[in-house]
Amino acid sequence: MYKIEPLIYIGQNILEQCLPYVQGRQVCVVTQKEIPDLMLQKLKNLFSSKTLNIVYIPEGETAKSWATVEYLMDQFVAAKFNRECTVVALGGGVVGDVAGFAASIYLRGVNFIQMPTTLLAQVDASVGGKTAINHAQGKNLIGTFYQATSVIIDIDSLQTLAQRDYIAGLAEVVKIACVRDADFFAWLEQHVETILVRESGTVMQMIHQAVKLKAQIVKADEKEQGERMLLNFGHTVAHAIETASAYDCLHGEAVAMGMVQALALSQEHGLSVQAVQRIIALLQGFGLPTQLPENGWQKHMAHDKKHRDSGLNRVLLAGLGQGMIHLEALASEE
Amino acid sequence: MYKIEPLIYIGQNILEQCLPYVQGRQVCVVTQKEIPDLMLQKLKNLFSSKTLNIVYIPEGETAKSWATVEYLMDQFVAAKFNRECTVVALGGGVVGDVAGFAASIYLRGVNFIQMPTTLLAQVDASVGGKTAINHAQGKNLIGTFYQATSVIIDIDSLQTLAQRDYIAGLAEVVKIACVRDADFFAWLEQHVETILVRESGTVMQMIHQAVKLKAQIVKADEKEQGERMLLNFGHTVAHAIETASAYDCLHGEAVAMGMVQALALSQEHGLSVQAVQRIIALLQGFGLPTQLPENGWQKHMAHDKKHRDSGLNRVLLAGLGQGMIHLEALASEE
Repeated sequence: MYKIEPLIYIGQNILEQCLPYVQGRQVCVVTQKEIPDLMLQKLKNLFSSKTLNIVYIPEGETAKSWATVEYLMDQFVAAKFNRECTVVALGGGVVGDVAGFAASIYLRGVNFIQMPTTLLAQVDASVGGKTAINHAQGKNLIGTFYQATSVIIDIDSLQTLAQRDYIAGLAEVVKIACVRDADFFAWLEQHVETILVRESGTVMQMIHQAVKLKAQIVKADEKEQGERMLLNFGHTVAHAIETASAYDCLHGEAVAMGMVQALALSQEHGLSVQAVQRIIALLQGFGLPTQLPENGWQKHMAHDKKHRDSGLNRVLLAGLGQGMIHLEALASEE
Repeated sequence: MYKIEPLIYIGQNILEQCLPYVQGRQVCVVTQKEIPDLMLQKLKNLFSSKTLNIVYIPEGETAKSWATVEYLMDQFVAAKFNRECTVVALGGGVVGDVAGFAASIYLRGVNFIQMPTTLLAQVDASVGGKTAINHAQGKNLIGTFYQATSVIIDIDSLQTLAQRDYIAGLAEVVKIACVRDADFFAWLEQHVETILVRESGTVMQMIHQAVKLKAQIVKADEKEQGERMLLNFGHTVAHAIETASAYDCLHGEAVAMGMVQALALSQEHGLSVQAVQRIIALLQGFGLPTQLPENGWQKHMAHDKKHRDSGLNRVLLAGLGQGMIHLEALASEE
């Protein structure tokens, strides 16, 4: 098992690591029907001495809605949850985002624990304290910064994950290597095959490095005033693609396409052709899409959270492992 | 003008004090139709060089709803507000609570300024960073801790306030004197008449002392883990009364009644008869209600936020100016 101080655990069969972080007697596990029953069963055993509620939310990105948040509030109130209760998110990024948001606003904030079950949530969404729901006009426009008291990354959950979902998660791994760590990028290039067949040791090592890099960035800039913006590499276009596709496209897939778009722009600012080729080759090696769709995503760029009065902050690469923030001036119509 | 570091200003005709706290070019003033047009006009002049949106929300406690928050989100998104925008709450506690909540969750939090226009909001709601909306089962069950970057208390706004609303605000002044400052309590006893006719100098002095006491408590315990609970004196029963009355009863009136109920309990734990009599006399001197209603409020006590696994934390008085926290064990049915 790996541990990243103060709160992230990575390993196999390690759900019980959450126990020291559950102080009260009321626990609510927020999850989805698609989550393997085995993990839920383990939690039932772990919390046998607690008052345990299990609440299911719908599947897919559209579950990150007001309706889901209101439903969770109703459940917490009906169960008479008090300020010492614990909300556990067992699932992918959708569950973590919406359960975290609910935990952050119920009684002005209650204890929250992340148990991410998809690769995407394990390497990205569950770390860093961003919670969110979507607005009809854009993804993640509503949310809070709210840190989980612990993040339990049990890679046993990956065993039943569909290959398409697993691969989508790899896009965030490539992303963090691109903006921060050229050595890690080279390691990924050397381990494409073992990663794709989910060899446990390799997967744990990969998750550990990705999460460690992300945790360092978040620690330095929790509220995304500067450095944390690097984590948005590929995301400005990705969110627009997702919104335009009505979330048919997986987040990781959109990030892969968004990175390719950002690479073209980076090249205009001096990124080498060789670096561009290596990144595209790695994305393709993992089976990720590298062609931008023609679904009208451009018109959804206006609502991106990264907009400032002075323009739109875009993340580009100066070199492999070297993300940089570039202020793109607004078009004159603005 | 009084100033309480780092962010609270108290005076007459001082709205322009907010200007250093407005950095971006987009400003949204959230207010209500009942707010004096003069103040809105002043803000229009102050923000003439900004992109200014004015959004009206419904009146009354029922406006602290999901519907209002969704409406505000729609307005912010439609106006393409970015992370550098500023949300200004111009109004009473309802406006501050719901606009503050909206500001805290839009793009994971944008700049927020309080301009409280009622006495209740000036001495209590606008200071301390609590935002909230209501759930059908209880008041303020949903919200965040989110500090305004500045609080501008312009007592000119009190000129047009209905006497019933003004008097309701005095309940929170009496409350803070009761739990924290016997000298201030005595000062209030000596100034009942000038306070009731809203003599400017007296009112400013009163607000300054009440806010200073509250700010000290909040600074020591922002997240209400201990000392800040003292500010809930009278509030456990008050929230139940308000919920049971469907908010016909004003918050301050409910707090006055709630304090009287807490005094009875305090007397059982040793509070002197003389102190009880002085407090009831001051509440009555201000024209506040001191008889508990028969509206079935008792059944709404179960959802109070102050519940813990071990019981319900009640605030009692050990003496005048000396609040204390008392853990009331739960009834056996719990």
